[in-house]
Amino acid sequence: MSRLIEPRTLKGFRDYPPDLMIPRERVLQTAREVYRSYGFAPIDTPALEYAEVLLGKGGEESDRLVYRFKDHGDRDVALRFDLTVPFARFAAQTVPQLGTPFKRYAMGPVWRGENTAAGRYREFWQCDFDTIGTTANATDIEAVLVINDLFAALGFERYEIRVNNRLVLNGLLESLGVADKAVPLLRSLDKLAKIGRDKVIEEMVREAGVTADQAAGVLMLAGVSGSNTAVLDEVEARSGANEKTREGVRRLRELLAVAEIAGVPAERIKIDLSIARGLDYYTGTIYETFLLDLPTIGSVCSGGRYDNLASLYTKTVLPGVGASLGVDRLLAAMETLKHPWLTGQTTPAQVLVIQFDGSRLGDYQRAARSLRAAGIATEVYPDAAKKPKAQFEYADKRGFRFALIAGADEFAKSVWKIKDLAKREEVTVSTDELVSRVKTLMS
Amino acid sequence: MSRLIEPRTLKGFRDYPPDLMIPRERVLQTAREVYRSYGFAPIDTPALEYAEVLLGKGGEESDRLVYRFKDHGDRDVALRFDLTVPFARFAAQTVPQLGTPFKRYAMGPVWRGENTAAGRYREFWQCDFDTIGTTANATDIEAVLVINDLFAALGFERYEIRVNNRLVLNGLLESLGVADKAVPLLRSLDKLAKIGRDKVIEEMVREAGVTADQAAGVLMLAGVSGSNTAVLDEVEARSGANEKTREGVRRLRELLAVAEIAGVPAERIKIDLSIARGLDYYTGTIYETFLLDLPTIGSVCSGGRYDNLASLYTKTVLPGVGASLGVDRLLAAMETLKHPWLTGQTTPAQVLVIQFDGSRLGDYQRAARSLRAAGIATEVYPDAAKKPKAQFEYADKRGFRFALIAGADEFAKSVWKIKDLAKREEVTVSTDELVSRVKTLMS
Repeated sequence: MSRLIEPRTLKGFRDYPPDLMIPRERVLQTAREVYRSYGFAPIDTPALEYAEVLLGKGGEESDRLVYRFKDHGDRDVALRFDLTVPFARFAAQTVPQLGTPFKRYAMGPVWRGENTAAGRYREFWQCDFDTIGTTANATDIEAVLVINDLFAALGFERYEIRVNNRLVLNGLLESLGVADKAVPLLRSLDKLAKIGRDKVIEEMVREAGVTADQAAGVLMLAGVSGSNTAVLDEVEARSGANEKTREGVRRLRELLAVAEIAGVPAERIKIDLSIARGLDYYTGTIYETFLLDLPTIGSVCSGGRYDNLASLYTKTVLPGVGASLGVDRLLAAMETLKHPWLTGQTTPAQVLVIQFDGSRLGDYQRAARSLRAAGIATEVYPDAAKKPKAQFEYADKRGFRFALIAGADEFAKSVWKIKDLAKREEVTVSTDELVSRVKTLMS
Repeated sequence: MSRLIEPRTLKGFRDYPPDLMIPRERVLQTAREVYRSYGFAPIDTPALEYAEVLLGKGGEESDRLVYRFKDHGDRDVALRFDLTVPFARFAAQTVPQLGTPFKRYAMGPVWRGENTAAGRYREFWQCDFDTIGTTANATDIEAVLVINDLFAALGFERYEIRVNNRLVLNGLLESLGVADKAVPLLRSLDKLAKIGRDKVIEEMVREAGVTADQAAGVLMLAGVSGSNTAVLDEVEARSGANEKTREGVRRLRELLAVAEIAGVPAERIKIDLSIARGLDYYTGTIYETFLLDLPTIGSVCSGGRYDNLASLYTKTVLPGVGASLGVDRLLAAMETLKHPWLTGQTTPAQVLVIQFDGSRLGDYQRAARSLRAAGIATEVYPDAAKKPKAQFEYADKRGFRFALIAGADEFAKSVWKIKDLAKREEVTVSTDELVSRVKTLMS
């Protein structure tokens, strides 16, 4: 026999076994249903693209993390590192046919050769939605409704969508006379929760070349607290006549008003002037979503408004707004929080038909098919050579709820035994009643 | 302004815009539901693996098609070219914890740097199910039930699952004294439908080094025709006492008998002794699935039984059986056949709320949310600055079925107008009745 190859995955890559994959599919299916319910349409783009297309701007830190190589045709190619850049390329190519406004969602893995700290993977899933082709605040507001409905549908009760608007920040920077240093300043501001006030000021002075007073002025916003209305009132009072800040505040006020009428509980939305999102391209509303029982894991759904999605590829200006669900981070949080979707079950089926007598396989599959037709996932144990004891052990290990048993006696009487595997209780029912009785027992 | 980057995809790669992605999601979701209904559990494995792991055997033709490169850590890595090899690696690593039998499905893209003939992509989706850890014929039989239920659920009526067993072929090769040339012979036999009898014989003589008589003997099987039972009877009669052939025939007979009792219509299964599947690793039952209205597109779901999945990575013997749905080929077939799932719709939503009056956005979203809560996907047009005419044009272009309209008059009376966009009919209903009336109109 030849030497065995060691079965292993690359560092930063992982398998999803059933106990993790069953919840992941449920999360993705839930996101799909919520996005669709708002009219977002699915698209998909290739994992592999011309490096030129993906690294359009070039020279940035993120570029060094990209998996890039020469393909068979000596093309310079790369694996996508997010779903936004491919969407921008897609939009430039396809929007002339599709028209705007265009609402899309996309879900899939992305790849980054990052350092693999705890819970940080080199392959991880994103799950984005965006509306492009309009600057209307209605779309910014809708993003909050989507995120709210998404987390409710994911089975969470205690979460908070933190909202800000870059215009508020930019207006403040203007009045402080440091508008041209917005990028490094907001990048530093974004670290407030992580490194604290003093270090942020230090970094602003060092990286953006502002004075300590100017840096403290930028941090003023983060100090404003109170109810959403109080925060907005205070900012407006302090910023005086700055047009940008006023427009930012106006859009945030409309967001709160519409969300309230639309029925989003008030405690779900929190105006937070300290969130800036490090990324340069956001220009308006910004979103982060925190699980209140596990805020330290960071935002699990983030996004914002941008002025122009696809300027690298087309002269058509495509403003938009969107957000991204961090699927792997969310799954890690669900695990920590013992979310009820993480059952440890390794089968998606509820019912196992014990293969008691191999010559009756047709009858077992016929019964199983009638249950499947009624929407009850049902497995027939694969191997009649295994004793019933081994089959029951398998049922327990996988996490089936019910076992169905029938041998010569039961077939003679046209009955089935239904065993509740958790309660260790057994009932005998007629074949005609089988489906309805299993349904009743399941509910 | 800097030079624009041309927005383009790599040769052999493609985007899925909404009109193609909506049916693709439906196909995948259908497969997911059918696989789950039989107790197959989802798993996922990385797109990228050690080249050593994926190219275990090495030297084969397929290896040259693999996307392979050095990563940041100078590791020799490759993109998966199917879902079977990663599953084998996964099984070797994980089955000790999971135990057998183990039933899994997996769906995702795979990558092969092939020549890009019509409809042949370098990135395409596979959608596999397998049961490993048992040689029981019950699992071979179940695979036919799964394929049957899958195509019924995909909305097809005219399809045929062609079944053979390698044991029948191998027994025949034994009796012809050419068992040691099985691999090249079966690879040639597999081309029968494509290149015809004469060319197959020619190739067998050339590639396998058999005589023309021996080649004709191998082709005998393909000449056997008639009902499933007649075919099996004739093979058994001709092959006499060969043990392998008899065992193959026995397993096929049991398959037919169980499928019949389980309720699969007889015309769906056809014993076809000429299908061999080129791949070396099949050792028992073999499946191919043909759409009877488009047989020329080839098999859309194929698979078979193998003796040992993971011998490259573990000494644990893992026999199994499974099949793979060719998602992209199926979608191409659905397009050609004008399958009703390919509607041309570019929105997953049915209802568009016209944003007639921007100050009423909260009311529009409230109404939309009540429809969404009732399972009716509803978009609020994103931009109140657009005239209603433009909003209706958008509704037509995307393929919405209904538009909802309310302005000052309607809000004063607490009513909504529902417009059927295909029929160009409008009804006025009270706000309380809105959800139930839309539901009625949709059904």
